[in-house]
Amino acid sequence: MSEHLSSFNKVAVIGTGVIGNGWIARFLAQGLDVVAFDPAEGAQERTQKALDQAWPSLEKIGLAKGANRNRLTFMPTIEEAVYEADLIQENVPEREDLKKSVLATIDTYAKVDAIIGSSTSGIMPSVLQAGLKHPERLVVAHPFNPVYILPLVELVAGNETDTNVINRAKEFYASVGMKPLIIQKEIEGHLADRLMEALWREALHLVNDGVATTEEVDAAIVYGAGLRWAQMGPFLTFHLAGGEKGMRHMLEQFGPALKLPWTKLEAPELTEELKEKVIIGCESHANDTTIAELENKRNAFLVELLDLVESYWPETTAAK
Amino acid sequence: MSEHLSSFNKVAVIGTGVIGNGWIARFLAQGLDVVAFDPAEGAQERTQKALDQAWPSLEKIGLAKGANRNRLTFMPTIEEAVYEADLIQENVPEREDLKKSVLATIDTYAKVDAIIGSSTSGIMPSVLQAGLKHPERLVVAHPFNPVYILPLVELVAGNETDTNVINRAKEFYASVGMKPLIIQKEIEGHLADRLMEALWREALHLVNDGVATTEEVDAAIVYGAGLRWAQMGPFLTFHLAGGEKGMRHMLEQFGPALKLPWTKLEAPELTEELKEKVIIGCESHANDTTIAELENKRNAFLVELLDLVESYWPETTAAK
Repeated sequence: MSEHLSSFNKVAVIGTGVIGNGWIARFLAQGLDVVAFDPAEGAQERTQKALDQAWPSLEKIGLAKGANRNRLTFMPTIEEAVYEADLIQENVPEREDLKKSVLATIDTYAKVDAIIGSSTSGIMPSVLQAGLKHPERLVVAHPFNPVYILPLVELVAGNETDTNVINRAKEFYASVGMKPLIIQKEIEGHLADRLMEALWREALHLVNDGVATTEEVDAAIVYGAGLRWAQMGPFLTFHLAGGEKGMRHMLEQFGPALKLPWTKLEAPELTEELKEKVIIGCESHANDTTIAELENKRNAFLVELLDLVESYWPETTAAK
Repeated sequence: MSEHLSSFNKVAVIGTGVIGNGWIARFLAQGLDVVAFDPAEGAQERTQKALDQAWPSLEKIGLAKGANRNRLTFMPTIEEAVYEADLIQENVPEREDLKKSVLATIDTYAKVDAIIGSSTSGIMPSVLQAGLKHPERLVVAHPFNPVYILPLVELVAGNETDTNVINRAKEFYASVGMKPLIIQKEIEGHLADRLMEALWREALHLVNDGVATTEEVDAAIVYGAGLRWAQMGPFLTFHLAGGEKGMRHMLEQFGPALKLPWTKLEAPELTEELKEKVIIGCESHANDTTIAELENKRNAFLVELLDLVESYWPETTAAK
């Protein structure tokens, strides 16, 4: 793990759900001082539990010098949480009005040169920064669960974001062991969630139409494309499937298939029946295994997988 | 690797492109006698080259007793290729008329109890079997590239397919080290390609709209969701993202997002401009690395990855 930049000594995490706690774990493991705020009752206890869960994986990955769980402090207000922070990571629920209100408070009390990163998975930064006193220092910095292991973070600038801020944000997230990917154009859902959402909507259709159970959908991924996607994205995968001529041959051969009525055109109605199908499918798939046990298994796997892929990377230089 | 069933001693592979050659490599490594047919000039040489490429990975995975590259014989006609075969794997180009014509020839000369597996990625088995003399022994058996490493094979029965044939096919593909997934309902594109196609179409849109380059799309997958998908499909992944309450919480929280205009509704027009963008994107992404070098790297990675995931599987019992 690289050393964090000296200009980002203290970070604030606002909102400590699954994503916020993931950031806290990553930042602490990277040797940073972390200040947190969440208005919910029992938030501090849940964060400690989340750290208990994450820490063994982080130790296995390797803690940075000075990394210490005790370097986390909860504050009773946003004002107190952000006023000394060099970077503020916002992770409140995905509602535009709530995010805008919290961001306005952060904006009011944060140091003027502090960067505000929003973990929003779908809202565009131009929407979030509109009306702030210092909109130029807001960027979307969207991570992936588990935030303390998965390296991807999407960085998206809004209309008012300063170029220098995006560059400093990129340096910061790289310094905490991540692969920052700057998205060229802001759209709802950014980039990765657009891709995941397309697959997700189709998966819901297939379950809804009785083609497969949730477990069968998962099996169709993990035993096939999923193994490839841990190393290569859809484009390079198809480049290899085209034989000697690569993607050129692939598009000649399979281009016409894009005209076929494969994939549904809209997301299915999320009826009670479909909801139950999906929920029961997952619960019976997980069987008697608790979420925590599944997480432990996932973490152990991902840590080893990361070691493995490191020796085969970089397959891409797009996210450095 | 498990021993192959004694009732499938000789298999025929009709059509030796990337997929046909992948089957040949897998079958030979599993200690089977393989008879092949392909009308194209130079087909035998290309198969030998493909075997040169695949064999080191297969040795690393572990060859079955009696496995030998010399147990492959090319025949000058389909008739001679199939007449002694217990299972015939059809892999001719993805055109309905061509497939139906080749399958009719196979059907005429194959032993009456031989199983015919079609590698079609999209055509429904009921369409392929219509008009055959023995339609009851045709199944879709759709594999994933590289066929000699990836374990998934989708088995799809048509209206006229005998239940016993599907069960025997399942036993056969499991006996050659695969994870056969029986698809409950035939649709164009079966199951896995529906999912991949949804992601692929969206990826093409994102490139077309200038949101990302092909390499950035790939990065958005490999550094995030792709690492998860090597172990868990979209459903179990989201089950874990929902916290303690799993998928139930996830759907409550993100269900409304299905109404958002995320993901495009149709595949983009594959214009010359888009085609070039995609092709050039892949070629520059691959840089000076040849397809063969990329394949070697991919194979070495996948072999190690399979070892790794084996120790964490089964995450699903849907594909046994």
